[in-house]
Amino acid sequence: MKRERLIFVTNDDSYASKGFEAAITLARRFGEVVAVAPMTPQSGKSQAFTIYEPLYLKTLRKEEGLHVYGLSGTPVDCVKMAFDHLLLDRKIDLVLSGINHGSNSAVNVLYSGTMGAAIEGSFYGCPSVGLSLTDHDADADFEAAMLYGERIIRAVLERPLQTQLCLNVNVPVARPEEIRGVKVCRQARGFWRESFVSCRDPHDREYFWLTGAFSNHEPEADDTDERALEEKYVSVVPVQVDMTDYRNLAAVEQMLADDTQQ
Amino acid sequence: MKRERLIFVTNDDSYASKGFEAAITLARRFGEVVAVAPMTPQSGKSQAFTIYEPLYLKTLRKEEGLHVYGLSGTPVDCVKMAFDHLLLDRKIDLVLSGINHGSNSAVNVLYSGTMGAAIEGSFYGCPSVGLSLTDHDADADFEAAMLYGERIIRAVLERPLQTQLCLNVNVPVARPEEIRGVKVCRQARGFWRESFVSCRDPHDREYFWLTGAFSNHEPEADDTDERALEEKYVSVVPVQVDMTDYRNLAAVEQMLADDTQQ
Repeated sequence: MKRERLIFVTNDDSYASKGFEAAITLARRFGEVVAVAPMTPQSGKSQAFTIYEPLYLKTLRKEEGLHVYGLSGTPVDCVKMAFDHLLLDRKIDLVLSGINHGSNSAVNVLYSGTMGAAIEGSFYGCPSVGLSLTDHDADADFEAAMLYGERIIRAVLERPLQTQLCLNVNVPVARPEEIRGVKVCRQARGFWRESFVSCRDPHDREYFWLTGAFSNHEPEADDTDERALEEKYVSVVPVQVDMTDYRNLAAVEQMLADDTQQ
Repeated sequence: MKRERLIFVTNDDSYASKGFEAAITLARRFGEVVAVAPMTPQSGKSQAFTIYEPLYLKTLRKEEGLHVYGLSGTPVDCVKMAFDHLLLDRKIDLVLSGINHGSNSAVNVLYSGTMGAAIEGSFYGCPSVGLSLTDHDADADFEAAMLYGERIIRAVLERPLQTQLCLNVNVPVARPEEIRGVKVCRQARGFWRESFVSCRDPHDREYFWLTGAFSNHEPEADDTDERALEEKYVSVVPVQVDMTDYRNLAAVEQMLADDTQQ
């Protein structure tokens, strides 16, 4: 008898988000599901994990083939809790992080709690998929994201690569029939340009609140995730974690040569 | 008359850390200093920024050529506060993040609040240096880190590169005269292997606390930051933020080809 697959699900919008429920529904099509999500929204938490505080784990749901927990930490904490504690002695076949309410394309891969968790999953040698829908609405329609998510997960499970695999999958807001397919692409260059809204709280203390918009620095490029999404494709960027700027190694060596030798 | 340089200083150990004071002292050797540090320790906060809460800014020190603030946010929030608010109309010549109590070599670049801030600084087109000492002691000796930090900062300011520059600088625990020099290197492969210590709080609730150790997956390689530090060199890794796994683009395309097309 074929062993049933084990899928681990997490996200960064908390266990109370519609996207988390959608991810669980999607994951159950592939086998047993264990899910741990943060107790509170953790968007923008990146690869953060908790050092200075204890973590509390709460069982939210236990039924045949499905265990759901809430954790008082970050998305990365949720992954560590699964691999280092809850599922310590079991083989996890896939990490599914999402479905995120909002895009994680381009440089958002660095800020995203969803992708932080997916990257963390890949550190344990487990294929990981971060799945995001470019719609922040709490009641977003996940139909297309689930349809394409299912196809991508099936491919990952049935044709495993020999290397560490982490995919940043973003789905544009569209009806499934409007989506033109899947494009494997590279992360677009670009950064957020932001400002602080300043106001006074009821205790007359000034506070600041961040607001801003993403700026694509290469709108003309046709091989980026940003472009794919604009053109109503599902974008898939394989992600790796060596951040060394190889192209600048020699220049930095030259720059430092005179000043840093004794 | 030559314009005085403006150095922005931040860190992830909070404004109350010895390493922050050391960074300010170091930065003042190069010009005017504006410093914003988190109000509370933010180690392991990665590239996290604050979305769901207002931020409070507190003036801690104002004197000729030095303004120091505390912010109720993450290291990345501190950088945004400087570039998007406090110093909006001024040219910042360098971001110095640190001096961190503890190593940020290898994959720690992803988890580190110190490096999160340095990377964020480089997003604003400003040369950025994350400076860390491989010693977690609150009373660590920063003499060697300040000496080598000064040499590296001088090189960055006096021989600017034409490209975005972010350096991950780590200094081994040693007397300055024991350090063998500076090595420009690549980020070592390796991950943390961790476990959760479980205990019960005074209210009889079970809690978990993360503990672990870094595992270098390529101890034999002689061009990594881990190796440089072991051999008592200061390691310098130039950092970039395109996380696309270019080597796997074709394989992922192949993997997805059958399942994802309609």
